[in-house]
Amino acid sequence: MDPLLTDLYEFTMAAALLGEGRADEPATFSLFVRNLPPDRGFLVAAGLHDVTRFLAGWRFDADAVARLAAAAPFDAAFLAWLAGLRFTGRVRAVPEGRIVFANEPLLEIDAPFGEAQLLETILLTLMTFPTAVATKAARCREAAGGRTLVDFGLRRAHSAGAGLAAARGAAIAGFAATSNVAAAARYGLPASGTMAHSFLTALAGNDPGGEIGAFRAFADHYGGDPVLLVDTWDTGAGIDHAIVVAKELAADGRRLAGVRLDSGDIAALARTARDRLDAAGLTGVAVFASGGLDEFEIARLLAAGAPIDGFGVGTNFATSADAPTLESVYKLVELGGRPMAKRSIGKATLPGAKQVWRRPGFGGDVLALAAEEAPVPGAEPLLRPVDLNADPGDAEAVAAARRRFEDDWSQLPQKYRHLTAPTGYEVELSGGLKAW
Amino acid sequence: MDPLLTDLYEFTMAAALLGEGRADEPATFSLFVRNLPPDRGFLVAAGLHDVTRFLAGWRFDADAVARLAAAAPFDAAFLAWLAGLRFTGRVRAVPEGRIVFANEPLLEIDAPFGEAQLLETILLTLMTFPTAVATKAARCREAAGGRTLVDFGLRRAHSAGAGLAAARGAAIAGFAATSNVAAAARYGLPASGTMAHSFLTALAGNDPGGEIGAFRAFADHYGGDPVLLVDTWDTGAGIDHAIVVAKELAADGRRLAGVRLDSGDIAALARTARDRLDAAGLTGVAVFASGGLDEFEIARLLAAGAPIDGFGVGTNFATSADAPTLESVYKLVELGGRPMAKRSIGKATLPGAKQVWRRPGFGGDVLALAAEEAPVPGAEPLLRPVDLNADPGDAEAVAAARRRFEDDWSQLPQKYRHLTAPTGYEVELSGGLKAW
Repeated sequence: MDPLLTDLYEFTMAAALLGEGRADEPATFSLFVRNLPPDRGFLVAAGLHDVTRFLAGWRFDADAVARLAAAAPFDAAFLAWLAGLRFTGRVRAVPEGRIVFANEPLLEIDAPFGEAQLLETILLTLMTFPTAVATKAARCREAAGGRTLVDFGLRRAHSAGAGLAAARGAAIAGFAATSNVAAAARYGLPASGTMAHSFLTALAGNDPGGEIGAFRAFADHYGGDPVLLVDTWDTGAGIDHAIVVAKELAADGRRLAGVRLDSGDIAALARTARDRLDAAGLTGVAVFASGGLDEFEIARLLAAGAPIDGFGVGTNFATSADAPTLESVYKLVELGGRPMAKRSIGKATLPGAKQVWRRPGFGGDVLALAAEEAPVPGAEPLLRPVDLNADPGDAEAVAAARRRFEDDWSQLPQKYRHLTAPTGYEVELSGGLKAW
Repeated sequence: MDPLLTDLYEFTMAAALLGEGRADEPATFSLFVRNLPPDRGFLVAAGLHDVTRFLAGWRFDADAVARLAAAAPFDAAFLAWLAGLRFTGRVRAVPEGRIVFANEPLLEIDAPFGEAQLLETILLTLMTFPTAVATKAARCREAAGGRTLVDFGLRRAHSAGAGLAAARGAAIAGFAATSNVAAAARYGLPASGTMAHSFLTALAGNDPGGEIGAFRAFADHYGGDPVLLVDTWDTGAGIDHAIVVAKELAADGRRLAGVRLDSGDIAALARTARDRLDAAGLTGVAVFASGGLDEFEIARLLAAGAPIDGFGVGTNFATSADAPTLESVYKLVELGGRPMAKRSIGKATLPGAKQVWRRPGFGGDVLALAAEEAPVPGAEPLLRPVDLNADPGDAEAVAAARRRFEDDWSQLPQKYRHLTAPTGYEVELSGGLKAW
């Protein structure tokens, strides 16, 4: 990753620190989210694996130094310092997949001031959206109540990288699959997909009467159990055509995995589909829905009793459309062994390197100074030292995050998971922080 | 770019087309935005340069084929076809920086059906957010009324790639600079930045009395005309300290470029800053504002008479927070020389390869079939053939897009540029399309 992917002011500040002889002073910065977006009761930590890879490989090679020198005036001493820069600090962080809350550090960097300052922008970039979209995924999970979820978000994600982050966040929060083949290959996820309306109109010669032939052609060339998109023309007829194909597949020892509804009154069409499939003895054929879905729409469909077995969530999920960002910040909290803090209305920063202690069963967290003893017997410390030399690989990093998420999710009381107006989780301050 | 960055269903459909012997049928797909988001009166086309590079380099090498084969079951004939695939089609597109409207094609692909279908997802990814964020940038431009705009968006963009797209869209729409050094280097843009609160607290030893020393230290090591952040403690005192430093710099033959306000009642603080700077004879020192700004907040500040010379726009800009996506679609409009269309409520697709004709001075557009004669004398065709072998380079592509934007922007009547409830621009259908 290009080490110039950062704000210019990180360089101008680092140059001033170097010039003042303070670049090597030991510092601690803390990355946290000040306030949760509306309707968010928790966050799912994500992004740390990319951070560890970035830090392990952080270099300003000759090309990067030359591009920086061309972009802004820096003196030779600073450019030489950059050329020799490596990350020499330590990272303490909440492992990916854990559930956290406002003001709890997602990660802390203990490093020489100049290094740690330079990292601000890229650490925020690598952590903010991954955490936002993993959180959005968990909310879809809550809404879907055990039903299948598939990520369809790539096409309108804010970049290919954002699409990968969305697929990864979805996997951490327990989605069954992604449509994004690159993400599936990289993260070891099941890839999933059906067909587009244009495919059917083309194979049917733009004639509704050709739909069944188009279904057959698709199934003939599909190497698995197909899902058929039934709403290109008349959805009722589409369902009936799918039933015919399902019986033909069964005669061949294959099966129709499901039908997909992508438009119209999804709840009513899902009832029609379920009724007709059941009447045909196809109780095992699933009804999938897609098209503008997010956690709110999933909840609305299920509240209306729609018999839907699975949901494809796309744009609104992958852009976290109702809350497209988080109030993430990266703040200097300790310098030269002295706690640093900012006292200002609404933007206060608590001093000192920190630890978060969690009572069992989400019985409340305590935000404490890292140097304090465990403030609560039996509580678990959330921030753990990160070994930058140990890379589990993309697939195992996601799998481990998913295991952590499942463990936390199974314990998180529902009042914190409500899609609207969730209960605020208690994060109290330790004695050490209150005394400050 | 990884050619597997696409939805699985593109591959399953292409495999079925190949199996049916229809992958080579000549097809035209059209990429357009169905409806503009709320309060959007226009779009700024962006993303085409990355599309042309992607298409010119589109290959499924052995590694990509192997990863696809591992991700989903495809037969050997399809995998062999993929391994030999190159883009053999043509692209007609609206050049970047041009102003367009709903339902007008941003680009059309004329290519064998299998190729053109496979490209759907990645073309939407490469065009949607760049166009959304260039549009957001133009709205900030409208709000700022000639004042300086700087992109500060990288840190909370949805990925590094999204941050680059935001910086690029900002440049196309006439921003003066970006804080993103990688974007500045790549696209040939001025890089801009000041300092963070943490830098000042650190250099001041966490003591407001040390602010002036921290300003001096920053200015000493800064190779240009500095901008000082004056709201870390007491903003009035910060302004006074900046004035002292400005006079010291002037005595050295240097100058203070400006002061930056990032919190509090920005409008009131800007008046204080302007008054004190003017009283000190520093009429040339600018007042910059940042912190949660977007086009709406810029307009509010200026309507309140705030004497602000420049704005740094970050998260709300770079995530296009009020409208984080566009209803972009990629639809089959012609197959085997026959127009294809979909008739359905709210999602109709007009048939045929198209051209957009624009009357001079944004006097209304005509959406027409590409095969039709110019429907209006003196009208300009917006879609142009794209030469995939001609790459102007990153910087020139942005510069050319910016020139086109400036030309269009200077002609676009203000009623279409309103930040809320803009007048809808007239896009009429040609005789050929009406007859369909």
